[in-house]
Amino acid sequence: MSATHPHFHGVFPYIVSPIKPTGEVDEAVLSRLCDDLIAAGVHGLAPLGSTGEFAYLSAAQRRRVVEVVIEATHGRVPVVAGVASTTTADAVAQAREYERLGADGILAILEAYFPIADDGVHAYFKAIGEAVGKPVVLYTNPSFQRSDLSLPVIEKLSRVPNIRYIKDASVNTGRLLSIINRVEGRMEVFAASSHIPACVMLIGGVGWMAGPACVAPRQSVELYELCRHGHWAAAMEKQRPLWALNQAFAKYNLAACIKGGLELQGYAVGAPLPPQAPLPPEGVEEVRRALAAIGALGSGTRPDSPSRGRLRT
Amino acid sequence: MSATHPHFHGVFPYIVSPIKPTGEVDEAVLSRLCDDLIAAGVHGLAPLGSTGEFAYLSAAQRRRVVEVVIEATHGRVPVVAGVASTTTADAVAQAREYERLGADGILAILEAYFPIADDGVHAYFKAIGEAVGKPVVLYTNPSFQRSDLSLPVIEKLSRVPNIRYIKDASVNTGRLLSIINRVEGRMEVFAASSHIPACVMLIGGVGWMAGPACVAPRQSVELYELCRHGHWAAAMEKQRPLWALNQAFAKYNLAACIKGGLELQGYAVGAPLPPQAPLPPEGVEEVRRALAAIGALGSGTRPDSPSRGRLRT
Amino acid sequence: MSATHPHFHGVFPYIVSPIKPTGEVDEAVLSRLCDDLIAAGVHGLAPLGSTGEFAYLSAAQRRRVVEVVIEATHGRVPVVAGVASTTTADAVAQAREYERLGADGILAILEAYFPIADDGVHAYFKAIGEAVGKPVVLYTNPSFQRSDLSLPVIEKLSRVPNIRYIKDASVNTGRLLSIINRVEGRMEVFAASSHIPACVMLIGGVGWMAGPACVAPRQSVELYELCRHGHWAAAMEKQRPLWALNQAFAKYNLAACIKGGLELQGYAVGAPLPPQAPLPPEGVEEVRRALAAIGALGSGTRPDSPSRGRLRT
Amino acid sequence: MSATHPHFHGVFPYIVSPIKPTGEVDEAVLSRLCDDLIAAGVHGLAPLGSTGEFAYLSAAQRRRVVEVVIEATHGRVPVVAGVASTTTADAVAQAREYERLGADGILAILEAYFPIADDGVHAYFKAIGEAVGKPVVLYTNPSFQRSDLSLPVIEKLSRVPNIRYIKDASVNTGRLLSIINRVEGRMEVFAASSHIPACVMLIGGVGWMAGPACVAPRQSVELYELCRHGHWAAAMEKQRPLWALNQAFAKYNLAACIKGGLELQGYAVGAPLPPQAPLPPEGVEEVRRALAAIGALGSGTRPDSPSRGRLRT
Repeated sequence: MSATHPHFHGVFPYIVSPIKPTGEVDEAVLSRLCDDLIAAGVHGLAPLGSTGEFAYLSAAQRRRVVEVVIEATHGRVPVVAGVASTTTADAVAQAREYERLGADGILAILEAYFPIADDGVHAYFKAIGEAVGKPVVLYTNPSFQRSDLSLPVIEKLSRVPNIRYIKDASVNTGRLLSIINRVEGRMEVFAASSHIPACVMLIGGVGWMAGPACVAPRQSVELYELCRHGHWAAAMEKQRPLWALNQAFAKYNLAACIKGGLELQGYAVGAPLPPQAPLPPEGVEEVRRALAAIGALGSGTRPDSPSRGRLRT
Repeated sequence: MSATHPHFHGVFPYIVSPIKPTGEVDEAVLSRLCDDLIAAGVHGLAPLGSTGEFAYLSAAQRRRVVEVVIEATHGRVPVVAGVASTTTADAVAQAREYERLGADGILAILEAYFPIADDGVHAYFKAIGEAVGKPVVLYTNPSFQRSDLSLPVIEKLSRVPNIRYIKDASVNTGRLLSIINRVEGRMEVFAASSHIPACVMLIGGVGWMAGPACVAPRQSVELYELCRHGHWAAAMEKQRPLWALNQAFAKYNLAACIKGGLELQGYAVGAPLPPQAPLPPEGVEEVRRALAAIGALGSGTRPDSPSRGRLRT
Repeated sequence: MSATHPHFHGVFPYIVSPIKPTGEVDEAVLSRLCDDLIAAGVHGLAPLGSTGEFAYLSAAQRRRVVEVVIEATHGRVPVVAGVASTTTADAVAQAREYERLGADGILAILEAYFPIADDGVHAYFKAIGEAVGKPVVLYTNPSFQRSDLSLPVIEKLSRVPNIRYIKDASVNTGRLLSIINRVEGRMEVFAASSHIPACVMLIGGVGWMAGPACVAPRQSVELYELCRHGHWAAAMEKQRPLWALNQAFAKYNLAACIKGGLELQGYAVGAPLPPQAPLPPEGVEEVRRALAAIGALGSGTRPDSPSRGRLRT
Repeated sequence: MSATHPHFHGVFPYIVSPIKPTGEVDEAVLSRLCDDLIAAGVHGLAPLGSTGEFAYLSAAQRRRVVEVVIEATHGRVPVVAGVASTTTADAVAQAREYERLGADGILAILEAYFPIADDGVHAYFKAIGEAVGKPVVLYTNPSFQRSDLSLPVIEKLSRVPNIRYIKDASVNTGRLLSIINRVEGRMEVFAASSHIPACVMLIGGVGWMAGPACVAPRQSVELYELCRHGHWAAAMEKQRPLWALNQAFAKYNLAACIKGGLELQGYAVGAPLPPQAPLPPEGVEEVRRALAAIGALGSGTRPDSPSRGRLRT
């Protein structure tokens, strides 16, 4: 890997996108969240992942989210910005723009309406890789997308110089080991919230990019450090309650859960964009309990926040 | 139904979207196609259906396609424009804009990344119905979308005054009869290219909205007339070879097939937007044979068209 | 087709399998049901279809069901017996045994645990076709089976002399027309309860094999006759309420619905074998209403039947 | 847990079922395989798992397989026999019979044709648990079965006294941690071949039941011991090449792979029962390479075995 690029590793929260009723990005809330996450020790920030509702934002909203995160981060940690499109041309334009805005890396997502064959999938990601100079992270989520990255395509893409990471959001952890076996070090693997991070670290992963790290940054970083130093028994002690948090989230829309959890912690991020449903009252309770169980309510909670309770209105 | 609105019925081709390499809508080709389809007797035009690649176009490209089709049609037949979004706010904005541009109806499509519960689905379509004065056609395609319209939601939506039609692009024809049984005349049903139009007409449908009608408009209109007059045996004589055309299309990306067929007929509509693959050579041959078998090559073909063969370059 | 075989056509109810608590086939109830169905005009009987719970019966129970139906029918209509297995050897043995017992045809079903490629699917059905002298009906139901018959395999099988019919229980009516287009008369098509029979008759089908015909035999035969004579408008008048019956059934386990409906009509057929659930009280009410709406309660109901109400105990 | 029962843990190969062309179980081959696996250190034997083709064997063949394995094992390790049925009554009868034959535990599998609701799933497994005195292992494989065990049902079943283990053959390792979190020690978890065993051991599993352990018993036991002693780095060294073996197997029918691998090792186990396909020549080569890479060819191979090459005839 090039000496000019940072080595992405550790915990990258998928930042939520707080949008005001007028449609504007809520810059104050977003900036404060970035600040607090960096203070909590996260290793990077990833705006416009699925938890960032990339699929629900206009081009202008997406660009503004990336700008605000980059400004707020101010170089303290790398920012990996999500690029998602159904067309190669649009994806390349997004990637170039985010690089120009100062992103340290690109998280590349393929959306599709009609199914795309392997050749098209390869061409899409290769074009993004070649359009930018910063490292590219491949993203794939077979549950929510109509395309998937096959092992042969992943292997081929691992030979594009700056495609250097992959984040697979399937539930299939064995697939991650198959990828690691196959790309022989040309590409590194991040876990998603659907994988047990300790397991992914055990098999050779370098960290995780996930929505839940927004609401449990400190705990996530502690888990990462235990794994990185091979303290597996202690890591599993941390992992088990963090997984319970994940399970609570799996029942509801992920953006609704993370936004709901952040509201409980005093960030006025609002609800996901309609027609997505806000977290229902029983979900708020479940998220509250799950956060309390790992000590993620309290210190972060600002009782005087004007946004408290907004979720239920 | 209101006397001020036309009654949508008959054959509505899903117009393809010809896009130049520069990203501009090819207005000349699109206008000529509209003209020829109207001359062939179609009962309406539907820009921005799935064959129209709505999912692959920018907001500006979509608007321009609608404008060009409305201008070219010049009121001779109704134009039903596709509105598709993941957010209610964006969908409502699109619908209002297309109505302002002169669309006679709205084809309402819900896109989704995270699954949407029935309440959200209902809210999305209801908001579109209430935002415009023109009739709304509900569209649902469980194969390519992550949301579906359940029968209870369809029934509820049939009570929104100007939601007056539905086009279900599943392969489940029985579902159409279930809808007809359930909405008791408040909503009328169009077939899609995945249903046998003669069957849908038999059970009480009012026509079809489909991509293949772009390349076989005259044959489609003849079939419609036979069905409408209850000449079922003769209708089936027409239906059988038209279905063979559909089957040929089912093997490939639908937009690639229709664009490929139109290229064979002398319309320089180009290929679908990458990373979608253009129709491969064997697909071109299959579409050529299927069109020849129903007499849809020849008269429409302009041997001096500069676009001939573009598909294979 | 051979002059020595009857031409299967019309309405073939999938007979339920009444099993006593001891595990014995309830011959008295089964015989009376066969008698009454033949008296109602059905064109054939099909024991051991999916509604016949073939997947829940032991080899001995299956054989006894076939024997009892053949004895009760006494040659008045053809009996087409279901053969289902995961192995070719067992399927061939079943088919030979049912032929020896006097079955007039075989309904051939492939069960699978691991997926089977086209070659294996072809080999299985071909072996059954070659093992017996009576006509074979191919059966396929992609919803409940892990294998499916592809169009190329169906075409190949249509060239095995006594494989002469197919019953496709997908919801995809277009697939039936594709089959009809492809087999060019070497094979004839029956509808299933998931297809609208009037539609399948319109496109060239020869009848239907379905569970609901057990509880609505007379109405089904009337619909068939209207279709056969091309009285399509009158056929649709009959079809619409019959479809409502089907819709009611689609909500619950099909065997539970048909057995529940027959109990309401006075046949003590019991509930499906556990752990399948009996029809719940709200399902009993829904089936009762659907049967009443088509006039299928009443004349067939024997108020003094000892089995009345057994479903709810 | 009761002191009268062994504590199941470690590596339990899913024994294949060698069937002669006559349909008889090949007792000599099966006995020798059991002997050799026990000599290689496996902690138990599991006849009639999916690799054991339970879905393809008659009741008599299944019983004979269980008998032969129990006789060959002669109490040296526990034998956990697979019980699989669509009906509760049949499953209970199988379980009682295998217990009477001397099985030390029951692997309980639910087959289904129509979907089964949670209540039915619970009733089925509870009935098996209550019918026998030996420990029961729940088995679930959402890829090949039409039923699945939900977390609430698993929790409920964990309170049935002798339902003490679960083997989940999904690819979702996170689900295993969710189960562990939820059953609070009342039930222990085995990995399947679709999970990375080292990961499952890390999160608290007690071993694995899997087909590949038939062809790599020594390597599997070594991996288990490293995990059990917390030598995670060394465990991953062993795990990586063993996973490559698994990946090779994932491309083909699992029974065909394991039987093919055993043939290469000199066990005349034959091919899976038709219409399942035997391992194709390229699969034989792939399995041969994968076995050679982990040192699982050679010592076990008997060059004079009369069965060599049988796979390819």
